[in-house]
Amino acid sequence: MKDLSFINDIKSMAVIGTSAKRNFFFLKNHQESFKGSLYAINPTVKEIPDFPKENIYKSIKEVPGKVDFAFITVPAKQVLPVIDECVEKGVKLVSIFTAEFSDAGTKEGIELEKELLTRADNKIRILGPNGMGLFYPKLGIAWRGFFPNTPGNIGLIAQSGGMCNIAIYTSMELGFNFSKVFSFGNGADLDFVDLLYFLSNDPETKVILLYIEGIKDNRFDALKEVLSQNKKPIVALKGGVSETGSKAVRTHTASISGNNKIWSALFKQYNIIEVDSLEQLLYTAQIIDFYGVNEFKNVAVFSISGGYGVVLVDLIEKYGMNVPPFSNEIQLKLDEKFFINGTSSNNPLDVAAQMFHSHTLVEIVDTALSDKKIDTLIMDMPSWYFDPKYYITRDTNFNENIEKVFKLGLKRYKPLFPIIQEAHCPEVSIRIARKLNQNKIAIYRNPLDFIPLLPKITIYKRKSLSK
Amino acid sequence: MKDLSFINDIKSMAVIGTSAKRNFFFLKNHQESFKGSLYAINPTVKEIPDFPKENIYKSIKEVPGKVDFAFITVPAKQVLPVIDECVEKGVKLVSIFTAEFSDAGTKEGIELEKELLTRADNKIRILGPNGMGLFYPKLGIAWRGFFPNTPGNIGLIAQSGGMCNIAIYTSMELGFNFSKVFSFGNGADLDFVDLLYFLSNDPETKVILLYIEGIKDNRFDALKEVLSQNKKPIVALKGGVSETGSKAVRTHTASISGNNKIWSALFKQYNIIEVDSLEQLLYTAQIIDFYGVNEFKNVAVFSISGGYGVVLVDLIEKYGMNVPPFSNEIQLKLDEKFFINGTSSNNPLDVAAQMFHSHTLVEIVDTALSDKKIDTLIMDMPSWYFDPKYYITRDTNFNENIEKVFKLGLKRYKPLFPIIQEAHCPEVSIRIARKLNQNKIAIYRNPLDFIPLLPKITIYKRKSLSK
Repeated sequence: MKDLSFINDIKSMAVIGTSAKRNFFFLKNHQESFKGSLYAINPTVKEIPDFPKENIYKSIKEVPGKVDFAFITVPAKQVLPVIDECVEKGVKLVSIFTAEFSDAGTKEGIELEKELLTRADNKIRILGPNGMGLFYPKLGIAWRGFFPNTPGNIGLIAQSGGMCNIAIYTSMELGFNFSKVFSFGNGADLDFVDLLYFLSNDPETKVILLYIEGIKDNRFDALKEVLSQNKKPIVALKGGVSETGSKAVRTHTASISGNNKIWSALFKQYNIIEVDSLEQLLYTAQIIDFYGVNEFKNVAVFSISGGYGVVLVDLIEKYGMNVPPFSNEIQLKLDEKFFINGTSSNNPLDVAAQMFHSHTLVEIVDTALSDKKIDTLIMDMPSWYFDPKYYITRDTNFNENIEKVFKLGLKRYKPLFPIIQEAHCPEVSIRIARKLNQNKIAIYRNPLDFIPLLPKITIYKRKSLSK
Repeated sequence: MKDLSFINDIKSMAVIGTSAKRNFFFLKNHQESFKGSLYAINPTVKEIPDFPKENIYKSIKEVPGKVDFAFITVPAKQVLPVIDECVEKGVKLVSIFTAEFSDAGTKEGIELEKELLTRADNKIRILGPNGMGLFYPKLGIAWRGFFPNTPGNIGLIAQSGGMCNIAIYTSMELGFNFSKVFSFGNGADLDFVDLLYFLSNDPETKVILLYIEGIKDNRFDALKEVLSQNKKPIVALKGGVSETGSKAVRTHTASISGNNKIWSALFKQYNIIEVDSLEQLLYTAQIIDFYGVNEFKNVAVFSISGGYGVVLVDLIEKYGMNVPPFSNEIQLKLDEKFFINGTSSNNPLDVAAQMFHSHTLVEIVDTALSDKKIDTLIMDMPSWYFDPKYYITRDTNFNENIEKVFKLGLKRYKPLFPIIQEAHCPEVSIRIARKLNQNKIAIYRNPLDFIPLLPKITIYKRKSLSK
């Protein structure tokens, strides 16, 4: 396996081929965030707005100090000489954004990619061609502007740069952070297996997300070897599981999507959590990042509307979890806390008209969570209730108390999932979700966004324990 | 069957039992919107802030003119004399908000409800007790403040007022409108079957939404009779399909949820679209309201990120639809419009780096939709692309052109579904969704919000055609 541990130590980088035509796009993005020495390489550019002139060079060979990493964005036919220079300079890793290699599907492109590997000769590691390369917030390596600068524990590997962009920007709102993201494009040198091996052993990465379109047939054994050693949770989205999807994968990345039965069996064998969409991939990452790997078996439900609570129960049981009666002792305590007609102190809890006695809601949820039998609590709270003009009775501490309710999961070390229905106040939902996600409380607007994911995490937990 | 056609002609209403304790909540809500004569009835109240003194009466009997409808919110033990007075006055319909009738599960409550029916003696129709009654935007009958005042074609029946509140407020953001909403609570007089009969024959209602917890066993034949006559699309959410959910229904509304196999068979027999959540119920209403009842068989996919496009294709085919090749003639036209490397002019269309040549996107989508084979188009567009600071190349008409793209479905009479991934700019998604939903273009943020609903509508269409 290829050793990539040097990545954690990158101190200097160059953007090769930066040009005025794209407003020095990739250089400027890195200038915003990169914490080491940054060089701009272009044989004809002498000045770049707001960039130190002394860091502009005609060739990477002219840079006085070391260069650990280079982002290459020169036209395809100039890539080979650039690689020669990078090898000569002792660059450890390059990321080739340039396309028109094997991705073009032409004989010339395929030949060019082969020649690239020959020239690199294992002296330099390559991400790409036709990929965005590396996002590494700790060091500020970021191919796009406005990427987050907080390092986290989640790693992501995908061929597609577009998928990585959506994932990275979405993480900012969901409140989790990435350790490293790799968009490896054609995977000429570093492929899916190499990068998985790296993240699986990377001390900065605790959970691994994958978007897989396919791998070369001769890499399957290596993949199994990496997976058999892996000890971290892996969440995978397989692209091309349908017939047309599989054809589209061949157009998109020229990789063999392969027989999907083989992939399903592999995911099962190596206890990989499989999801159906990019949104599910990110929500699963959020849940594991905030709460660790949990068993979600017995669920308490708390609802403002009895009807909505009933539907929640149906969904929870549809996805294989239970909404059991509370323990006797807990039930007696709960009974005492309900004092308004039309409420129900059983599981599912239905607070109905008692909702604007919000101090009692804090006690009710805390008591429910204190039941040893209960693994998690799911509750609904429509967005408009956060606006006093919708109160039926006066309850000046409503917002404050509901925030206390939302935080009770952290106190009891049990995931508590609030559903804030957007209704006609989506901005309120966003404001509250943003605030609480930053507090590591996962908020959803639609129960189907997260309920189907919980049993997947449970199965992972059980299988990893039984190992 | 009970004749409720007089509802469309309500000209006057009274709120009986309005009190300072709740800040005249229900009176004030109706005052905001009701278009006829509104009276406040309370034996001890002489003045109500900002309410005409001459419309306050001690008893409904004292109101000089006719009263068609009364909203009753007096304590349970005062309901019977109030009903006597309403009958005497010739009120046609009352909505009883008061609880503690059969919903309490006590002998007294059950007796009280029986006595209520005896006193009403079919001379007056009753919604409730323990329900919110009627929302009728055309006349401004609205139990809550800030309800929308635009009449539409969608009817909704639910026992639960909470479900109705979420549905009504959500409709404002989704851009569809209700004809009438009924929250019938205990359904002592008017029950689920009566109201379905009414909406099924109501000229103002084109689509019927149901949230059903259950009905009395002796009403099943009447329900079948109504369904066998019905010619409108019905979308149903059955609460209590799980074991615990079914128990919760008994607590919540004291109705018999019944054997779910019977309900499933009924939905199948009468071509009722069944959904799993309130969100799905409302999204289905939105799709049918905007586009009518369509067959979604052959889907064109248009993506900015090839990877996201592949996942969309997988989801579309998972839910039984196809992403077929374009017709030869259309394919030739499309081929001409793609000029940047790394794009794909086949279905799924992958515009990749061509996205900031946005005038070509208008031509591409229009050409794809012109294919006779294609029923609908699903596209993705991450939120941040609407902000020029994220553009890689200059494209000053991007926003304008993308809006043109979104509207091409209306031009071609084929549903076009944009997915705007929120990522880190959820406010942008909301702004665009709000604007386009008002233009009757359904926008989603997550493909799983709507893709699973399309085959349900297709099945409805096919079965209704084959009748």
